[in-house]
Amino acid sequence: MKKIVVLGAGMVGRVMASDLAAEFEVTSVDFSPANLSRLEGTPVRTVRADLASETVVREIVGGSDLVVGAVPGSMGYATLKAVIAAGKDVVDISFFPEDAFLLDEAARDAGVTAVVDCGVAPGMDNMILGYHAARMAVGSFECYVGGLPFRREFPFEYKAPFSPADVIEEYTRPARYVENGHVVVRPALSDVELLEFPEVGTLEAFNSDGLRSLLKTMKVPNMIEKTLRYPGHVDRIRALRAGGFFDAGEIEVRGVRVRPIDVSSAVLFKHWHLGEEDDEFTVMRIVVAGHENGRPKRYAYDLFDRRDRTTGFSSMARTTGFPATAVARLILSGRLGRKGIVPPEAIGADEAAFRAVMDELAARNVVYRVSEA
Amino acid sequence: MKKIVVLGAGMVGRVMASDLAAEFEVTSVDFSPANLSRLEGTPVRTVRADLASETVVREIVGGSDLVVGAVPGSMGYATLKAVIAAGKDVVDISFFPEDAFLLDEAARDAGVTAVVDCGVAPGMDNMILGYHAARMAVGSFECYVGGLPFRREFPFEYKAPFSPADVIEEYTRPARYVENGHVVVRPALSDVELLEFPEVGTLEAFNSDGLRSLLKTMKVPNMIEKTLRYPGHVDRIRALRAGGFFDAGEIEVRGVRVRPIDVSSAVLFKHWHLGEEDDEFTVMRIVVAGHENGRPKRYAYDLFDRRDRTTGFSSMARTTGFPATAVARLILSGRLGRKGIVPPEAIGADEAAFRAVMDELAARNVVYRVSEA
Repeated sequence: MKKIVVLGAGMVGRVMASDLAAEFEVTSVDFSPANLSRLEGTPVRTVRADLASETVVREIVGGSDLVVGAVPGSMGYATLKAVIAAGKDVVDISFFPEDAFLLDEAARDAGVTAVVDCGVAPGMDNMILGYHAARMAVGSFECYVGGLPFRREFPFEYKAPFSPADVIEEYTRPARYVENGHVVVRPALSDVELLEFPEVGTLEAFNSDGLRSLLKTMKVPNMIEKTLRYPGHVDRIRALRAGGFFDAGEIEVRGVRVRPIDVSSAVLFKHWHLGEEDDEFTVMRIVVAGHENGRPKRYAYDLFDRRDRTTGFSSMARTTGFPATAVARLILSGRLGRKGIVPPEAIGADEAAFRAVMDELAARNVVYRVSEA
Repeated sequence: MKKIVVLGAGMVGRVMASDLAAEFEVTSVDFSPANLSRLEGTPVRTVRADLASETVVREIVGGSDLVVGAVPGSMGYATLKAVIAAGKDVVDISFFPEDAFLLDEAARDAGVTAVVDCGVAPGMDNMILGYHAARMAVGSFECYVGGLPFRREFPFEYKAPFSPADVIEEYTRPARYVENGHVVVRPALSDVELLEFPEVGTLEAFNSDGLRSLLKTMKVPNMIEKTLRYPGHVDRIRALRAGGFFDAGEIEVRGVRVRPIDVSSAVLFKHWHLGEEDDEFTVMRIVVAGHENGRPKRYAYDLFDRRDRTTGFSSMARTTGFPATAVARLILSGRLGRKGIVPPEAIGADEAAFRAVMDELAARNVVYRVSEA
């Protein structure tokens, strides 16, 4: 039986480990005993280790056939680098801020397939665009995506399984989109628009820096990614940002020095923390438009997914984790041979691979409804 | 020439000292050299001293005929106590949270006239209600008041000359009003309503705990005080409050312990700080309704005041400081003989005193427009 090591046993890492354990020998690694304890009673083997150490990472992945990376974004790049150095194929969803392509040469040299950004967004939107871009002249690509709790609690009406610091990063990093072939840089949280979704009603969308590898790999003249929240969220976050609560410079407060952004992350943690039982959903709308066989063509993909009451798996974990486990299966079955840093759009371009991923998702009831016009 | 000591040389303290210096020998006392330096070139004598020490306060006020108190709210009660112990008549605008009447016996014993809350609100609203309550059966009293910058800057559209901690206190302390003869306690920032003001347009009003002594001294069945801000302010402040940014319990942030409220005060300081040159205004609407001579009667007082471009005095300082200097003149001229803690409503009940204060204000172009119906 092939061996998989899943680095990180957070909400998404655990679901991936459990999913893969049906077919493989899976080891889950985390520094938090609380995270690991939630895998008790599953076939997943657990190891407590500090993945901040490259030596530890290389040692732990040593005997595996494939690695899945699901560590916090701040650790993602270093961890991926260590896995590549260990010569292991890897599927990563850690969504780190650094440019993964800086590791392309190292991965090729090591003969490693390193699929990055392999979640829902980035991830599935890349695959979908990659699929169509190989089959039509894409003129525009739009991706709207958000994960939200059903219970809307004042004032932010938001919860997430990751650290508030990662969310604040999304609220402060300038967003890049492509307009008429040119990259446009706009402040995060800009260009708010309201959209209707049949399952949940009105949500607001704002620019976020989610195109990532697509900016480099795709020659599509218009591409935009926006994040979805309940209406009103952006105004309150903008107020915090403009009010100085996300400032990264140290200030003195009653004799101690702190950074407002660190204090805000700590304060927001209890408000934004998605509990293991909180009912939540993922909503995504992708529109790919252009010309196919010389005629105007438009594909829309709509995803609405919620926590699975049977498995208890959150929607966030399902929609983010299952694309990665599907790709892990592709690699282990030898159907994905490309070496180096592999963005999901490259997988999508391969029809068999794309269909295989979509089938794996559908088998887990993560269903993209496709409409054509 | 009679001698006055003004304790506190902040924005309001300096204006009071300057105003009184036209007729009296005035000494201004503060711990901040920057505050004191702003009195250079005026006839006011300045003394740098730490008013947190009772001994210092007693020594400094020793040779004076009257004291004006304008220290931060947190120091107000202790300072007033020290002045009373020194046997000096005093007019105070420090708006401290403690109950001033706890010092009533000490003031009577010392033969001291101690007028408290003698600003615009509390202050002028008390005097106006006191005046009418002595002449009619008041059924209801409403006071809407706010000091705001003309320049509306996202996200809070607010500036004040005092510390954000004092403002946050107003946003967290439960507000008391009187309804059908009963005291009702509501959360701060509750019952938001929109009101129109001819000079500035629409403002929003919310419950704030401003009735203070009126709750004790007045038998009016309906009394309410609300604070005015630009529309949207309350929602953003409520978001901060509900989001945990005003929490007073310590949390750990990267190895140091801080209280979110202290960090928020520090962060908001630069956003809320009213500069010496910022153009700002005070708006107040007071409605006293009931029966006079057996017939329904309603008095409305409207104040709109802005920074005086000639003197440079802010509206906040003018509207808050001139009632206190007017009352100081009343005391020094022997026209206000009552001993003990004297709330402004007791001054208003005396027609001659009330008219004298209103005349002093009008002479400084702080004009209450009165309408009757």
